[in-house]
Amino acid sequence: MTRKLHLNLFLHDTGHHEASWRLPESDPYANLSLEAHQRLSRIAEDAKFDSVFLADSPVLWSDPGRRPSGKLEPTLLLAALIASTSRIGLIATASTSYNEPYNLARRFASLDHLSGGRAGWNIVTTAGADAARNFGLDDQPLHADRYQRADEFLDVSTKLWDSWADDAVLADKRAGVHAAADRVRSIEHRGRYFRVDGPLNLPRSPQAWPLLVQAGSSEDGKEFAAKWAEAVFTAQPTLAESQAFYADLKKRAAAAGRDPDHVVILPGIVPIIGDTAAEAQELDAELDRLIAPRYAVATLAHLLRVPAESLDLDKPLPEDLPPEEEIEGAKSRRTLIVDWARRENLTVRELIGRLGGGRGHRTFTGTPVQVADTIQEYFENGAADGFNIMPAVLPSGVEAFATKVVPILQERGLFRTDYEGTTLREHYGLPRPASRLHAGAVRDRGYR
Amino acid sequence: MTRKLHLNLFLHDTGHHEASWRLPESDPYANLSLEAHQRLSRIAEDAKFDSVFLADSPVLWSDPGRRPSGKLEPTLLLAALIASTSRIGLIATASTSYNEPYNLARRFASLDHLSGGRAGWNIVTTAGADAARNFGLDDQPLHADRYQRADEFLDVSTKLWDSWADDAVLADKRAGVHAAADRVRSIEHRGRYFRVDGPLNLPRSPQAWPLLVQAGSSEDGKEFAAKWAEAVFTAQPTLAESQAFYADLKKRAAAAGRDPDHVVILPGIVPIIGDTAAEAQELDAELDRLIAPRYAVATLAHLLRVPAESLDLDKPLPEDLPPEEEIEGAKSRRTLIVDWARRENLTVRELIGRLGGGRGHRTFTGTPVQVADTIQEYFENGAADGFNIMPAVLPSGVEAFATKVVPILQERGLFRTDYEGTTLREHYGLPRPASRLHAGAVRDRGYR
Repeated sequence: MTRKLHLNLFLHDTGHHEASWRLPESDPYANLSLEAHQRLSRIAEDAKFDSVFLADSPVLWSDPGRRPSGKLEPTLLLAALIASTSRIGLIATASTSYNEPYNLARRFASLDHLSGGRAGWNIVTTAGADAARNFGLDDQPLHADRYQRADEFLDVSTKLWDSWADDAVLADKRAGVHAAADRVRSIEHRGRYFRVDGPLNLPRSPQAWPLLVQAGSSEDGKEFAAKWAEAVFTAQPTLAESQAFYADLKKRAAAAGRDPDHVVILPGIVPIIGDTAAEAQELDAELDRLIAPRYAVATLAHLLRVPAESLDLDKPLPEDLPPEEEIEGAKSRRTLIVDWARRENLTVRELIGRLGGGRGHRTFTGTPVQVADTIQEYFENGAADGFNIMPAVLPSGVEAFATKVVPILQERGLFRTDYEGTTLREHYGLPRPASRLHAGAVRDRGYR
Repeated sequence: MTRKLHLNLFLHDTGHHEASWRLPESDPYANLSLEAHQRLSRIAEDAKFDSVFLADSPVLWSDPGRRPSGKLEPTLLLAALIASTSRIGLIATASTSYNEPYNLARRFASLDHLSGGRAGWNIVTTAGADAARNFGLDDQPLHADRYQRADEFLDVSTKLWDSWADDAVLADKRAGVHAAADRVRSIEHRGRYFRVDGPLNLPRSPQAWPLLVQAGSSEDGKEFAAKWAEAVFTAQPTLAESQAFYADLKKRAAAAGRDPDHVVILPGIVPIIGDTAAEAQELDAELDRLIAPRYAVATLAHLLRVPAESLDLDKPLPEDLPPEEEIEGAKSRRTLIVDWARRENLTVRELIGRLGGGRGHRTFTGTPVQVADTIQEYFENGAADGFNIMPAVLPSGVEAFATKVVPILQERGLFRTDYEGTTLREHYGLPRPASRLHAGAVRDRGYR
């Protein structure tokens, strides 16, 4: 079988460019609209994308003036999209730092049952003191602590998902026995962060576990991904950096005793597509003109942990930034951005222009053929197993990608022309997990 | 305006009778099926019910052999029903003991945005050591503590829902200002159980707050309902008990400074409907024959905190039951059941037959006219503002109710023939809450 690439659509109301909501075509209430999300997910499904994805943090993320900042809770929003889609995977972000494993494992199992095996979980540890202060803490837990908790959270969650054997449900009406009690067991977890008896109050779901996705690029994040993640989102601004990340993570997965092919690496790309290169450049320039500098500078200053006054729009970043070690938070993203600004000697104004689009992800402005060429180049040169598509403007950006770029990828034999399986793991070519708690034959009980 | 009664459908996979799944007509996987729930909610919506409702506890509720025991998480399941319904209210149960207010307030606000104002929250404090042991505790918190936490949880939640003023979102593309920062404020909550800074990361929703529903009938529960609840589910086996409960709760609401009309009281009724009385009795008897006594006795023993061996199927309940004060849990339900068994001198076998249907709620077996007469009698004699309909068998029980009982109630002018409003609060005739945190004019910004 020829290797095929994978495509995820990163949903983001009017688009990933922070000024996208100001375009005449944009619905500034799309962030709260079921219909807007139904439309986006149907475009992606019609184009045979593997999945759609929603980021999340349990905090008001930015100044509410800057862009649409209301965020619907992702597991609920994706549940609401089940009825209007049939095959596409649904990946929700949720935090291991600010949830209880019993509740969250149950929500993802519910999403998997309801969607017939289309659920995915982007596991985050949630950086930032602002989020911590919504949950009784003064500051965020230390970076390493967050990842230790995340690791134990996954241990508990996978045991809960496996607490029912695949063959537990008998539905024997005559004998009056719905499930075999000896095929449903407690987990009796006793750890550093959690004590959970179980069992889960749900049978094992179509995929058994949701697809496990991860996006942290710090050392802790990569070790966590090597152990648990089946798909990895990453922000890599160049081909060389993407190749290095790809090789490193596959190696770490092998070192963790896993099949490196079972970790699908999906760099983010922000395509800005025009029928001609000039048309694409014009859209790019229009978006950058719409960025309100006062908000962008404040956000950049927050990320770098410096006063906003220390950033001059027409000068490079100050020399004396707080070093990486002192920042407990969005560790890898901050390093990527600073390295990038220094390497290309960008002014603050130029940097916020770039960040408005890609936030550290690769922005690619060009024609459909140019975008397809770039994707092929990454895919065939050890830099990607597929892409996390982050259109600068939505829905027009995904429409352009679906109708102009996807057909080229299909003609080149790089992308599917139809779904072959029904579950999200099948789309990504990943196996259904074996049970950690129950041995024995698996009976297919025909989940609907 | 004539007073109209209200109807809620209590969704429960194959029905509220514990043996309903064993009937030939029943789908024993309905508990995990989106389609089954879509069908039930559409039947209820076609009949103009005010709402559908899902109970919940974060624990495997009973022996998995007994009946379908897998429970999809209610807020997700109701989110998945939004697309296939348009007017009916969606009420999910969620626990204040085992959630964080920021997360849960956000999920209900999300459900309200996504559904265009149809969200309701049945607030429970979650009895039982089994649930506690899924959340790091050895035993459940004390009854009074659970209600104190619930009260503070509502204080935090309502402040979060009010953290954005109704007129906060401007969506001013020209000025590049999405929301007015001075109309979005932190809540800085500092209490005994919670510290939450806020604001919520969602604008105020169509209903502002989800409809607040409550069902505890203990002293603490009734005080909580009097303070917070806008709709109350209750289990009252007779007209006299229902009248007493109704009068008591309306009085408590008035004493708490609220308009008693803004607390809608909905006793549960388990209708078993036949075209003739004999046909209804036959269905009732068939269901009771299908109850497996070994499971029912174990559940009853658990509720009464006695060994299963102490219960003899053909004798009344033992005299020396542990007194009410010693039981920290489903306080009122246990009292209701014991009083009922003693008053009618029921054997254990007779008692579990009754509990299989109504679990303490009123079972009513009869023709459509008889069921309508009973509803009218309660509604017109100070016992109910409407009913929580708990069909013994689903979907057939709600089909019978919708097509045979509802038309009678409509002909008598007791029930609506179409929806008049679009939100759940409008269905129940309840006002949209004023903001606790923002004063000033409310601008209608046209939520879709």
